[in-house]
Amino acid sequence: MASIARITTISARSETSFEDAITQGITRANETLRGIEGAWVKDHVVNIKDGAITSWQVTLELTFVLDDAGPAVDPSFD
Amino acid sequence: MASIARITTISARSETSFEDAITQGITRANETLRGIEGAWVKDHVVNIKDGAITSWQVTLELTFVLDDAGPAVDPSFD
Amino acid sequence: MASIARITTISARSETSFEDAITQGITRANETLRGIEGAWVKDHVVNIKDGAITSWQVTLELTFVLDDAGPAVDPSFD
Amino acid sequence: MASIARITTISARSETSFEDAITQGITRANETLRGIEGAWVKDHVVNIKDGAITSWQVTLELTFVLDDAGPAVDPSFD
Amino acid sequence: MASIARITTISARSETSFEDAITQGITRANETLRGIEGAWVKDHVVNIKDGAITSWQVTLELTFVLDDAGPAVDPSFD
Amino acid sequence: MASIARITTISARSETSFEDAITQGITRANETLRGIEGAWVKDHVVNIKDGAITSWQVTLELTFVLDDAGPAVDPSFD
Amino acid sequence: MASIARITTISARSETSFEDAITQGITRANETLRGIEGAWVKDHVVNIKDGAITSWQVTLELTFVLDDAGPAVDPSFD
Amino acid sequence: MASIARITTISARSETSFEDAITQGITRANETLRGIEGAWVKDHVVNIKDGAITSWQVTLELTFVLDDAGPAVDPSFD
Amino acid sequence: MASIARITTISARSETSFEDAITQGITRANETLRGIEGAWVKDHVVNIKDGAITSWQVTLELTFVLDDAGPAVDPSFD
Amino acid sequence: MASIARITTISARSETSFEDAITQGITRANETLRGIEGAWVKDHVVNIKDGAITSWQVTLELTFVLDDAGPAVDPSFD
Amino acid sequence: MASIARITTISARSETSFEDAITQGITRANETLRGIEGAWVKDHVVNIKDGAITSWQVTLELTFVLDDAGPAVDPSFD
Amino acid sequence: MASIARITTISARSETSFEDAITQGITRANETLRGIEGAWVKDHVVNIKDGAITSWQVTLELTFVLDDAGPAVDPSFD
Repeated sequence: MASIARITTISARSETSFEDAITQGITRANETLRGIEGAWVKDHVVNIKDGAITSWQVTLELTFVLDDAGPAVDPSFD
Repeated sequence: MASIARITTISARSETSFEDAITQGITRANETLRGIEGAWVKDHVVNIKDGAITSWQVTLELTFVLDDAGPAVDPSFD
Repeated sequence: MASIARITTISARSETSFEDAITQGITRANETLRGIEGAWVKDHVVNIKDGAITSWQVTLELTFVLDDAGPAVDPSFD
Repeated sequence: MASIARITTISARSETSFEDAITQGITRANETLRGIEGAWVKDHVVNIKDGAITSWQVTLELTFVLDDAGPAVDPSFD
Repeated sequence: MASIARITTISARSETSFEDAITQGITRANETLRGIEGAWVKDHVVNIKDGAITSWQVTLELTFVLDDAGPAVDPSFD
Repeated sequence: MASIARITTISARSETSFEDAITQGITRANETLRGIEGAWVKDHVVNIKDGAITSWQVTLELTFVLDDAGPAVDPSFD
Repeated sequence: MASIARITTISARSETSFEDAITQGITRANETLRGIEGAWVKDHVVNIKDGAITSWQVTLELTFVLDDAGPAVDPSFD
Repeated sequence: MASIARITTISARSETSFEDAITQGITRANETLRGIEGAWVKDHVVNIKDGAITSWQVTLELTFVLDDAGPAVDPSFD
Repeated sequence: MASIARITTISARSETSFEDAITQGITRANETLRGIEGAWVKDHVVNIKDGAITSWQVTLELTFVLDDAGPAVDPSFD
Repeated sequence: MASIARITTISARSETSFEDAITQGITRANETLRGIEGAWVKDHVVNIKDGAITSWQVTLELTFVLDDAGPAVDPSFD
Repeated sequence: MASIARITTISARSETSFEDAITQGITRANETLRGIEGAWVKDHVVNIKDGAITSWQVTLELTFVLDDAGPAVDPSFD
Repeated sequence: MASIARITTISARSETSFEDAITQGITRANETLRGIEGAWVKDHVVNIKDGAITSWQVTLELTFVLDDAGPAVDPSFD
């Protein structure tokens, strides 16, 4: 039987570090997406003001497996 | 606190110009997506028939901020 | 009038071939997405165990046209 | 039956705008190529002299369908 | 002595499979181009209607050797 | 004799259009850089607020020729 | 504890199809490499003679897990 | 009114971590560049000697806004 | 008035050096193409037999200006 | 005299952080490869289960210098 | 202590060869930039007139180390 | 029957020219690798000290055919 996953892109920003941004982004995504299996860190960016770093930001490509119940219980497909 | 955004890709087509296609694509996306902050124009294409341009088409990567209310009020997460 | 499409990425896996993975991925996507017009095969991967291929996997970028009824009947926009 | 198209690259330059360069490039290509269906704008460049823009230039990848009459009536294949 | 080849791009579409599209594209190109030596499959795309695949399409970069007779017998150079 | 040019990257933003952003970016660069010969438009981005485009932004790679007077009269080299 | 894998690139060619080339390439690699887990198909090429396809060729990036016995029993590391 | 920024590339190296390299690179850049707004981490590299990491190195693309005073007070433009 | 150029790709091989391959490729192309203005060296490859280099090969993207006489005197357009 | 290095790719995974994955990957590679001089971090990935990160994984391109003793003492060349 | 370098891009053109263009570009850059350590040859281009090569041109990404004296003695930072 | 080749990456450096670096890199690789058929020059770099070029360096992707004797006589596979 075929197995289907979906790939979606989010951006997450933390005041402390890139790894905190990744952790927080995944925690937030996990509230609405079931079955997240992995994330590719596509970009690392820092935001700066008056010579100091104000936030550490990552772009994440998340992969999450779709269960087979179909549209009714899987509104997240789109 | 972390700030999370989502990145989604649309394609928009206009009979008049690339800039009209961009404006219309964002207007249409804004009907269902709250908090759009920017769009990167990933590709510019023209469609042609009998030697004349029939439409100007762009692919846009839209970034929109997610509010913190979670899944109930944010069905757009996926 | 402008015409808008959306582009989304899925990954599909089959035990028999890449072409079966593509067909199954599109069949599954078609259950929740109206108006799919095409798919670009972004990546071809095989999964292997004990020297034998266990699955053929593709990443697909699907393009589907959005109708103009707006958010109420088009929850799939995001 | 299979359908075959060919992809060729041109560069077009206008004194007024990118969109004029695209339109003129397609008009000129249409004099020798039958069946042009679309063009991807691969690059946008401006040429400058004494601080002023002298021309707007685009590189276009044109796709045009080949009819099935074969070499005699289709010298454009190469 | 130098040896010269030319590289040209075609797109071919089949109702049955990618491999049929490749075979048909090369057969068609061979009617007008002498000396084709190889083809790189640059892109794999499927076209879809009503949830079913209507065609399998490839973009091919063909390499073909030019003989040394020069322009008179080699109109294919351009 | 060798001829040397330098390539530098700027970003320019306009409230009206991409072409205005390009023109203004080059006008501003021309105040400090002598001998600008061309610009490649590397990226097109729009900034958005409340569903409306607030600015059209481009990234430009500028090429400008260095004259041969050397460091004293060419502080712009770096 | 950390887990280490190695990525190596091979090219495989078959007279019948791309999928046969992939299967044969992995079978051959499996004779010397323990623990192959997957392969990414980096390129698809066909070789052609007298207008007919003589072989179907793929470039594969193989990933295989290294066990922890170290250099003596793992000459394959390099 | 148009707003202009400049993008420049630096490389920074730290003995302790990538994030320290980023912080130090920005601190050093801030001594000569006014108005730095962000940095994209283009590459992550480690330097190694005798099997141990001797430094963590990043390549940063810095964006900084140019004020409108022109060449006299903005020698940093080039 | 618009100015149109065409971009075509050739591969050239020499027994002595890359620069000889480039020179010979351009000399050969010049027999059939009028108005060649430049060439970008897209790839450098060497062919090897028994541990010795047998040829130096380049892929060139040639740009040549099209004159305005149209199809009759410009069979080179395609 | 010429100096030769080899470039090989590994993937390393840690339960604690990307930097631990890098350090462990290099330590493990150093057991079989002499003369490692640097590593480029080609990709950053996190693996996730039940909404929590289970491992931090990097792909590393390692460069290591080959000494001149030849095949007998340098089995690592391939 | 952190070590900082800057990366800048130049283009250099010679009538004789690519290697002469590289040598001349570095010689010219060395007049204004202290501490150049290396150059990556990003592009190779030839300029052509009447079927003959008129110049060999390279684009170089130069890396040069910044000393720690700061803005007063390092006007080259920007 | 399938034909298998392997692709490996080396870097070679010469004090005189890029072409000498390529020749020397292949000569050195040929001491341990049987059946090298070609090399793609992936990167050209020059190393510089006190404004003068100290070495010309290339990165080469070597392709070499594997014979069918298997692991015992083909330790080079990995």
